[in-house]
Amino acid sequence: MAVEVVYRSTRDPEQLFMDKAEADRHDKMLELAETLRDVLQKAVPSLSEQQGEELGIFMAKNRAVFAKAFKNQAEALNELEMPG
Amino acid sequence: MAVEVVYRSTRDPEQLFMDKAEADRHDKMLELAETLRDVLQKAVPSLSEQQGEELGIFMAKNRAVFAKAFKNQAEALNELEMPG
Repeated sequence: MAVEVVYRSTRDPEQLFMDKAEADRHDKMLELAETLRDVLQKAVPSLSEQQGEELGIFMAKNRAVFAKAFKNQAEALNELEMPG
Repeated sequence: MAVEVVYRSTRDPEQLFMDKAEADRHDKMLELAETLRDVLQKAVPSLSEQQGEELGIFMAKNRAVFAKAFKNQAEALNELEMPG
């Protein structure tokens, strides 16, 4: 038996990582997702909490593609792999 | 009386512009809004058509801010002016 270090984001304590960089990436993703959720819920008040959550996570996970789409090429969004 | 040139996007024929560049910008904005609407509706199927529309327009109108947020700084979203 031994003791080992694991890492987690305080935003999602259930998810443990062996690698600190991966935990950092997860934390950043969740941070962006939360900000998006808040902004989109203010802009479109009819969104449910669940919808805001899903939108934020989806976009934050696909951050690079959305960055491209907003920068100059909407077509970048065609690269997205869709759930289901 | 005289005849004059006006411009419009075929995506929104009601809206006329005196300036071609402005009409172009409007068309680009609507194109991005439509693409976003489609992508977000696929990702979050519970969204209504109306919600998808509003999300797409809101984000497309604030394209530069979202570009920054997705590129590297989520804080850019704090600059957004909210409707209402």
